[in-house]
Amino acid sequence: MTDSSTNMRLKLPVVCFILEIILIILFGALVEYDYETDAKKWHNKTHSDYDNDFYYRYPSFQDVHVMIFIGFGFLMTFLQRYGFSSVGFNFLIAAFALQWATLMQGFFHGMHHGKIHIGVESMINADFCTGSVLISFGAVLGKTSPVQLLIMAMFEVTLFAVNEYVLLTILGVKDAGGSMTIHTFGAYFGLMVTRVLYRPNLDKSKSRNSSVYHSDLFAMIGTIYLWMFWPSFNSAITAHGDDQHRTAMNTYYSLAACTLASYGMSSLTAHDGKLDMVHIQNAALAGGVAVGTAGEMMLTPFGSMIVGFLAGIISVLGFKYLSPLLESKLKIQDTCGVHNLHGMPGILGAVVGAVTAAMATFDIYGEGMKDVFPEIVNGQSASTQAGFQALGLAVTLGIALLGGALVGFVLKLPVFGAPSDTICYEDSIYWEVPGEEEDHEAQLTEVRPDEAQKLNA
Amino acid sequence: MTDSSTNMRLKLPVVCFILEIILIILFGALVEYDYETDAKKWHNKTHSDYDNDFYYRYPSFQDVHVMIFIGFGFLMTFLQRYGFSSVGFNFLIAAFALQWATLMQGFFHGMHHGKIHIGVESMINADFCTGSVLISFGAVLGKTSPVQLLIMAMFEVTLFAVNEYVLLTILGVKDAGGSMTIHTFGAYFGLMVTRVLYRPNLDKSKSRNSSVYHSDLFAMIGTIYLWMFWPSFNSAITAHGDDQHRTAMNTYYSLAACTLASYGMSSLTAHDGKLDMVHIQNAALAGGVAVGTAGEMMLTPFGSMIVGFLAGIISVLGFKYLSPLLESKLKIQDTCGVHNLHGMPGILGAVVGAVTAAMATFDIYGEGMKDVFPEIVNGQSASTQAGFQALGLAVTLGIALLGGALVGFVLKLPVFGAPSDTICYEDSIYWEVPGEEEDHEAQLTEVRPDEAQKLNA
Amino acid sequence: MTDSSTNMRLKLPVVCFILEIILIILFGALVEYDYETDAKKWHNKTHSDYDNDFYYRYPSFQDVHVMIFIGFGFLMTFLQRYGFSSVGFNFLIAAFALQWATLMQGFFHGMHHGKIHIGVESMINADFCTGSVLISFGAVLGKTSPVQLLIMAMFEVTLFAVNEYVLLTILGVKDAGGSMTIHTFGAYFGLMVTRVLYRPNLDKSKSRNSSVYHSDLFAMIGTIYLWMFWPSFNSAITAHGDDQHRTAMNTYYSLAACTLASYGMSSLTAHDGKLDMVHIQNAALAGGVAVGTAGEMMLTPFGSMIVGFLAGIISVLGFKYLSPLLESKLKIQDTCGVHNLHGMPGILGAVVGAVTAAMATFDIYGEGMKDVFPEIVNGQSASTQAGFQALGLAVTLGIALLGGALVGFVLKLPVFGAPSDTICYEDSIYWEVPGEEEDHEAQLTEVRPDEAQKLNA
Repeated sequence: MTDSSTNMRLKLPVVCFILEIILIILFGALVEYDYETDAKKWHNKTHSDYDNDFYYRYPSFQDVHVMIFIGFGFLMTFLQRYGFSSVGFNFLIAAFALQWATLMQGFFHGMHHGKIHIGVESMINADFCTGSVLISFGAVLGKTSPVQLLIMAMFEVTLFAVNEYVLLTILGVKDAGGSMTIHTFGAYFGLMVTRVLYRPNLDKSKSRNSSVYHSDLFAMIGTIYLWMFWPSFNSAITAHGDDQHRTAMNTYYSLAACTLASYGMSSLTAHDGKLDMVHIQNAALAGGVAVGTAGEMMLTPFGSMIVGFLAGIISVLGFKYLSPLLESKLKIQDTCGVHNLHGMPGILGAVVGAVTAAMATFDIYGEGMKDVFPEIVNGQSASTQAGFQALGLAVTLGIALLGGALVGFVLKLPVFGAPSDTICYEDSIYWEVPGEEEDHEAQLTEVRPDEAQKLNA
Repeated sequence: MTDSSTNMRLKLPVVCFILEIILIILFGALVEYDYETDAKKWHNKTHSDYDNDFYYRYPSFQDVHVMIFIGFGFLMTFLQRYGFSSVGFNFLIAAFALQWATLMQGFFHGMHHGKIHIGVESMINADFCTGSVLISFGAVLGKTSPVQLLIMAMFEVTLFAVNEYVLLTILGVKDAGGSMTIHTFGAYFGLMVTRVLYRPNLDKSKSRNSSVYHSDLFAMIGTIYLWMFWPSFNSAITAHGDDQHRTAMNTYYSLAACTLASYGMSSLTAHDGKLDMVHIQNAALAGGVAVGTAGEMMLTPFGSMIVGFLAGIISVLGFKYLSPLLESKLKIQDTCGVHNLHGMPGILGAVVGAVTAAMATFDIYGEGMKDVFPEIVNGQSASTQAGFQALGLAVTLGIALLGGALVGFVLKLPVFGAPSDTICYEDSIYWEVPGEEEDHEAQLTEVRPDEAQKLNA
Repeated sequence: MTDSSTNMRLKLPVVCFILEIILIILFGALVEYDYETDAKKWHNKTHSDYDNDFYYRYPSFQDVHVMIFIGFGFLMTFLQRYGFSSVGFNFLIAAFALQWATLMQGFFHGMHHGKIHIGVESMINADFCTGSVLISFGAVLGKTSPVQLLIMAMFEVTLFAVNEYVLLTILGVKDAGGSMTIHTFGAYFGLMVTRVLYRPNLDKSKSRNSSVYHSDLFAMIGTIYLWMFWPSFNSAITAHGDDQHRTAMNTYYSLAACTLASYGMSSLTAHDGKLDMVHIQNAALAGGVAVGTAGEMMLTPFGSMIVGFLAGIISVLGFKYLSPLLESKLKIQDTCGVHNLHGMPGILGAVVGAVTAAMATFDIYGEGMKDVFPEIVNGQSASTQAGFQALGLAVTLGIALLGGALVGFVLKLPVFGAPSDTICYEDSIYWEVPGEEEDHEAQLTEVRPDEAQKLNA
């Protein structure tokens, strides 16, 4: 199907090329290898090559990378006619966002003589920021053009960097796995965007806003990868040593508990007790979101499991009862239910983080306090730290909602080639889509009759 | 389809919630961070953060984790109408089993002042134990309710921990990759369960007990991940240094040789020479099972390849000739053929391990003997070690078969919601299943005629 | 369908068994554990077990392994009726090639007292060589029997090792990620093979030489894994420390830039602006190929992005305009378009490598020069190094084209069971293929009427 308004032939190439050329120019002007990636700087000092941070961060980076490109990409393939766009637009906007995030985060994290220094840690941070954009993508999935998504990513990355700077640098908030900076921010930003882009006649596309058998299996690839690697995600940029180790383990147990809660709730809330793939694909992950802030703290596996258990329950209830209300009452059309996977569990995670911070004592943390709460070592009280954690949540919600509204109005401009209400959730607007598998018997009869006879023997 | 006997609305939530709440309480009472994950303990001594075992075990853990959740989960999606259950129940029982295994193994591996200490090594061990449960799942695939599977997992994890304790601690058996503790145990336990649960009228479901084109491709995702990461599996908890390195390499070559043997045998045993996906999906993995015990020993790549080659041949022959006999003569309905992938290759692996142990000399191992065979360093003869290895196999078979029989009878209780013989291998009993992909043309005509015209232009 | 000429019942088992038995014998005679995998040698010296190279190479190895088996395997599943063969033959020839490559590379890389020493680095090198074979497989995909592929692999691995030896050892060329040794070699070798095997009547199979919706999604699994892990590929065997770190980062940015260029070009070259899956699946990866040589050099992220951007543009243009010409004018039937993904970007990578080498100064590299350009430290000028780099490209093209022609003629022998022109791109020649998903309603009616009634309630 072809429609001049959604024809991307000029818009998409122009946006891709302009953005990439700007990125290249800015990288040329501003970006340098950091100490660990520069041949001269690294060899200027005496240390073992094995001390390079590559060996202590890169495996985590690769797990995060898989979550961004496979995890998010395939999680969204559940729609029956939107698999190309789910994986493909995820790929496009992630490839853009990670470059742009390198610049924005580099700018806010501190320049070195006017230069941004990059290495594996900046790569992880850029992937984190990209994750936030992909969460927002989940809210608007099926209803936006790739050009809109790139524009959204450009603004969202920028605001993400601002919010992250306020939280981590100004307020001294701890948020290793990004319950606030990544999940809460991405979810409420995306929800506000989709609110502004409200489509009153979206039910005309509702036949495609559902899954088919195979699309649900593809989506499970995304779910399982997100689930497995979430321990790596939450621990990817915590301090080395016990901190990374503990964060990964807390996340592992939170997710396990969350999974049992999700299955139980999914069955309980169905009139015939049957499990709903939407819950399994999403709610089982909420445990990872909900320990994103407290995972590096001395939450204990016990605490982690309680948090995960609650997150799974909240998330399924959200899918079942809250999402329909948000759509009917607040006009929030949240395709993937990001409010249930990232929004509420993100807020839960922020609250758990604040509570856990309030309970921090030197008796529990010992000398490890300096890694987890450097401000407390500097004399700040645990309750003050908790207050800043809570403030961080408020700031995040504020910037996300305001930013989302602003960007939503930008995206409403009619030039970006959004699909009409009747053809949402449809790959063939933006992609060359092949036919379904042709009848195999029919194919074989295309061969010469004598050949066919042989083949069918 | 709905049937009150298989309705999970009360059973599954109750079991999930009770199990998880018990787990949480026991974790609260018994589980503590170990030395490497506790902020205070770790910082109590002077050492580099880079010495934390996280950096030397976590990448292996993640590979194992992928095998458990993607590998086993997708390997079982080959059935045409059981993909949701294969991936989804795999997910559920693995999430439960890894928590329960932490407690059971922690209890048997030795408490510290009444507490179980956990870190990355216990996480790997928990995943290993989970793997054993998933092997048994393969034997009963399609014929059990999720409640039955959770009950089975609870008992099996417990017996696994007992058997592991007897082998590794009492007998001093070496079994790094678990040819005995994981594969032989899981396979014969599952085979005994499925024997007890024998269904005389299972042929009423036989139309669904087969694959379709796409389900076989999904299953190949599982196969390939298991194959690729098996070197990490076998080496995940061997001693650091040469031991991990050697184990991974031996496994790599065993699997490569096994793959060629499997392809050759699959073609040879087909009357028209055509390859059978069942063999490729399973037999090609037998080489990993068969070096699970000896992989850490000085087996040499040469020895590993011979073992893998034999394992591939045995496995294909098992699928082709033995499995039908087991079903018709012994009434063992082994859905995934775990006897061929885990049972016989596991026994082969145990025997190879005993033989390799018998040939251990200080001339071959040098100072490395203390890592591989500490008992030999302590004065035990190599042939005694070999004897204990063989004894370990006998103990494993005994506990697995007795335990499987016992658990099978428990699972026969009619309260667990098992499917009837006519609707086995069917997702829609326990899952909301979407329709097949609707006719796309039909969908487009749902839009307004003028829109449709535009679209089809 | 069955045809005596393509019946593999004798041919494939004989070839598999003979090859594997030869491999086992040669491994027995020639292969030994290296210093890091041998229990005695490793424990002969005093060093920490944590110093074992396993911990600094194995995570990279596993990423490369995923690229070889999942990446290449699933990338080729885009064909509608060739998924079993794409993944399955990829699996078979890779399992063979990595064993044979261990011997061939071991022979050329230098024997130790008549023995080949192996460890994780040789495992990575064997996977690299295997990658080259799989690139050639892409050119002949759908038109060859598994026996032909094994024969091709045997010859190609041998010639790969010769070419690699000439470049790396004799000419002192740097090519960490294999723009020349892997990509250029594999592509032009495969293109020459497919040229010699030209099929004038291949259009009789053209109905199957295309994708369907789900096959394109499976292929995206391959694409995304290749894309994500390419940084690990290019850095897997560079020097430790800054070199690995820098190579991974350069590749990351090159790929990101390449992705935006590919999307832009794909839309720009379509008359209706719609994205083409072929471009996204392939061209977005060209950035990884194109920094395969220069990635370890001080290319800078800026330089890497320019290279990736150009590679994406060239690759899409190749798919769109050059491939049809190669087929019609030069009779090169390149199923996967390896010329566009590996051929031209490989040459671009070689040229970029030569130019970057020419610009190497001690002012830029400092003491790090010895890792990147040891010959320059030994007194060779940068421009001489550049000359050798260029010479390496010429040698590679020469050996690849001559070798491909030679092997193509061998493969033309009528004994290998190639499919006829009418049944190319078809799994069912070599595989037992299950039917399509049967009508679910029909299945349910097979059960007893009263059961069915209950089910449908």
